[in-house]
Amino acid sequence: MSTLQSLSEEQLSARLGVLEAAYEDYKSRGLKLDMSRGKPGPEQLELSMKLLDTVDSQTGAKTLKGEETRNYGMLDGIPEMKDMFADVLGVESANVIVGGNSSLNLMFDYISQAYSHGVCGHPAWCREEKVKFLCPAPGYDRHFAVTEYFGIELIAVDMTENGPDMDQVERLAADPQVKGIWCVPMYSNPDGITYSDETVRRLCGMKTGAPDFRIMWDNAYGLHHLTDTPDQLLNVYETAKACGNEDRVMLFASTSKISFPGAGVAAMAGSPANIADVKNRLSFETIGYDKLNMLRHARYFGNADGLREHYKQHAAVIRPKFKAVLESLEMHLGGKGIARWKTPNGGYFVSVFLLDGCAKETVRLLKEAGVVMTGAGATYPYGKDPRDSNIRIAPTYPSLDEVRTAIDMFCVCAELACVRKLLAGR
Amino acid sequence: MSTLQSLSEEQLSARLGVLEAAYEDYKSRGLKLDMSRGKPGPEQLELSMKLLDTVDSQTGAKTLKGEETRNYGMLDGIPEMKDMFADVLGVESANVIVGGNSSLNLMFDYISQAYSHGVCGHPAWCREEKVKFLCPAPGYDRHFAVTEYFGIELIAVDMTENGPDMDQVERLAADPQVKGIWCVPMYSNPDGITYSDETVRRLCGMKTGAPDFRIMWDNAYGLHHLTDTPDQLLNVYETAKACGNEDRVMLFASTSKISFPGAGVAAMAGSPANIADVKNRLSFETIGYDKLNMLRHARYFGNADGLREHYKQHAAVIRPKFKAVLESLEMHLGGKGIARWKTPNGGYFVSVFLLDGCAKETVRLLKEAGVVMTGAGATYPYGKDPRDSNIRIAPTYPSLDEVRTAIDMFCVCAELACVRKLLAGR
Repeated sequence: MSTLQSLSEEQLSARLGVLEAAYEDYKSRGLKLDMSRGKPGPEQLELSMKLLDTVDSQTGAKTLKGEETRNYGMLDGIPEMKDMFADVLGVESANVIVGGNSSLNLMFDYISQAYSHGVCGHPAWCREEKVKFLCPAPGYDRHFAVTEYFGIELIAVDMTENGPDMDQVERLAADPQVKGIWCVPMYSNPDGITYSDETVRRLCGMKTGAPDFRIMWDNAYGLHHLTDTPDQLLNVYETAKACGNEDRVMLFASTSKISFPGAGVAAMAGSPANIADVKNRLSFETIGYDKLNMLRHARYFGNADGLREHYKQHAAVIRPKFKAVLESLEMHLGGKGIARWKTPNGGYFVSVFLLDGCAKETVRLLKEAGVVMTGAGATYPYGKDPRDSNIRIAPTYPSLDEVRTAIDMFCVCAELACVRKLLAGR
Repeated sequence: MSTLQSLSEEQLSARLGVLEAAYEDYKSRGLKLDMSRGKPGPEQLELSMKLLDTVDSQTGAKTLKGEETRNYGMLDGIPEMKDMFADVLGVESANVIVGGNSSLNLMFDYISQAYSHGVCGHPAWCREEKVKFLCPAPGYDRHFAVTEYFGIELIAVDMTENGPDMDQVERLAADPQVKGIWCVPMYSNPDGITYSDETVRRLCGMKTGAPDFRIMWDNAYGLHHLTDTPDQLLNVYETAKACGNEDRVMLFASTSKISFPGAGVAAMAGSPANIADVKNRLSFETIGYDKLNMLRHARYFGNADGLREHYKQHAAVIRPKFKAVLESLEMHLGGKGIARWKTPNGGYFVSVFLLDGCAKETVRLLKEAGVVMTGAGATYPYGKDPRDSNIRIAPTYPSLDEVRTAIDMFCVCAELACVRKLLAGR
C-alpha cells in the first residue's frame, strides 16, 4: 500500500470517486449508530445482576463486622469497601474515603473545595489572581470541563507514549499559578497509554511553583485490562511519599465500569492530611454516602481480586469489539499515511490521529450518515484540537455488528476527508 | 403544683436534696443512652426491607416506560421519582431534580454553587464583600453549619408559634447583604412548628434587598405526621409564583426517614430558571445519580400516596416514644415554672425551653450520668443559645424503655439544674 500523499492527482481523484460512492451507499442505509461515549453495552450490564441479590429482605444489611448500613453515619464508608479500594489504589485503608456512585463527583467536589476553601490550609483558589491547570491532551473532556467551570485556565500538555511530556510538565509546573494536572495514568482516555515509571517518578518528584499543586490521579481504568499481559503502573502514592510529596497526589477510582455505570461505588484516597481535609468538608456536606450499595459491592466482589476476576468477563465481551475496530483501521487505513493509532492493552477507547485538519470533517461526514462520534476536539482543552487531528472511538456500547459497520464507515469517512484535503492542497 | 420560684429557700433546698439523691441513683446505674440525633430506630429500619427486593437479577432494571437505569445518564432522575417528588413538594415534575441519598448534600451543593458561581446569573457570593443568612432559631444545626462553612454570617431570627418572626425577617431581608433564609417549614427541627399561611405568604411576598435572595425550603418532615389530624402547609412554590417571586424558593425533600436514612432518595425543586441553573452545574458535576436506587423506591412506593401510607407505619412505631417523652415532661416538670414545650403533630423532635442559663448544665449532668443529648446551643447559629435555654430531645432512636428512662433522667437533671440556679440567685 502506497501512501495517499504519493498518489498522483489523477489517482487521488479516482480514489475520491470510489470513496464518495461508498459514502453515499452508507448514507442511503439510514443508520443510527453511536460510538461517542465510553458506556458499557447492554451485555456488560447483565454481568453484575447478581450483585443486586446480595442485599435483600432476607440477607439483612449488616457488614461483616456487624455494623448497620441502613442508618445515618460512617462518613468515609464501610470498612470492607475501604479495604477494597485501598488495594485498588495502592494505599492504606485509613487513607480511603468511599463515596457515592460517581468518581467524577468526588473530583468535582475536590476542585470545588480547592476553589472555595483551599486545600490543607493553603489559600482558596478563588482568592488567587489566576489559577491554571495542566491538561495532558488528548485527554478526558469531563476533567477539563470541571476546571474550566471554575474559571481555571487550561494548559494543554502533549501526550507521549509514556504519558504527559514531562519536560513540558516540569517547565510549566514551575509557575506558581499552575495548581495541578489531570491524569488518567492507566489506559488513558483516549490514547490507552499507561504512564511509564519514569513519568510517575518525575510527576511525584518535580519541583512545583505552587505549594498546593495537586495531581488529580483518576485511575479510572486501573483494573480494566484487555489482555493477559496487562500494562504495569508504578504506585504513585508510595512514590510521592518517598519524594516527600505525599500531599501532592489525590487518587480516584470507581466500579462504574465493573458493576454498573449508574450505580457503582466510587472512592478517593490521599495523604492523611488530604483525607482529614476532605473529611472535614464532608462533615458539612452529607451525613454519609449510600452504604447499602457499598454493602452490595462488598458482598458480591469480596475484595479487589474479586473485582479483577470479574472484569475478565467484561474484557471477554468488549475484546471482540476492540479487535473489530483495530482490524478495520489496519485494513482500510493502514499504510496510507493518513492515520495512526495505538493498540491499547486496556481501557475503553481507540484514539485515532488523522491528517491535520481532517478530524472535524470526518465526524461531520459520519454524523450525516447516522454515526455519532465524540465531537472532534472534545479531547482537548476548550474542545479545540489545534491540529484538528484526533478522534476518540468508543466501541463498547454498540453491538459487535454495529461496531463493524460503524468502524468501516469511519474508515471511509476518514479517508474521504483526507483525500479531499490532499486534493485541495495540490 | 406550685412553681419552684414560689418556694421558700428551705423548700428549694429540700427539693435539691431529693433531686440529688435521685440523680446519684441514676448515675450509679452506669447507663448508656443516646437521644442526640434524629435517627430512626432499628424497628423503623425493618419497615422498608421489602424495598430491597424490588430490583434484583430476576426483576430487571427498566423503568415503567422501559428506560434503562443501570447505565450512565438521566441527569435529573427517572420519571417515576420526579413525579413522586413533584407531588411531595407541590411542583411540576419538570421542575424536579432527583438526587442521591442526601438532601443535605443537595442543599450544600446549592450554597456552594451560589458561593462560587452565583445563582441565575447573579454575581458569585464569594465576590461580595459580605454575605449574611437568616437562621430561624432554634433550628437545624447542619443547615447553619453549611452557611457558616462558606463564611456566611449567620443572623438568628426568633421562632414563633407560626414560624420565623416575620417582622424581624422582613426588616433583616431589606439588607442587600442578606442572601437567604433557612426554613424547615413543617414540624420544624426542633420545635415541631408548621409555618402559618400568613408566614408563607409574607416570606414569598416580602421585599428583599438582595435580588438573589433564596428561601432554602427544607421540607424534611412534610409527610412525617404523628397524628390523624396533621398540620397543613401552604404551597410555597405556587405562593411565590403568584407574588412574581418564583425564583426565590428552592425546595428540598428526601425519603431518608421513610425508607432508609443511609440509602434513601433526595430531591430538589424550584423555578424553571433555578432548575436550569442547577442542571447546568450538574452536567459538570456528575453523569447522573444512582437510578437503581430510584427504581427501588419507585417500585416499592409507587407514588407519593405510597410514601404517605408507608409513613403511618413509622408513626405507629415512634408515637409511643413521643407520648412517653411528653407524659414524663408533664408529670415531672409540668406547672413548675421552669420548662415549656410544645406537643408536635409530626417531625422528629420535642424541643424544651428551660429556665435561662440551665440548658448546658442539664446536658452536662445527663452526660455524666450516661445520657447523650444534642449539645445545648446546637440549635442556634454558631452553637450559641443566647439564653442557654433550649434542649432538643430526639426520642426515635432508643427503644421505648430507654426513652422512658432517659426522659425521666432528663426531668431530674433539668429540675436539678434549675433548682441550683434558683438557689444561687437567692
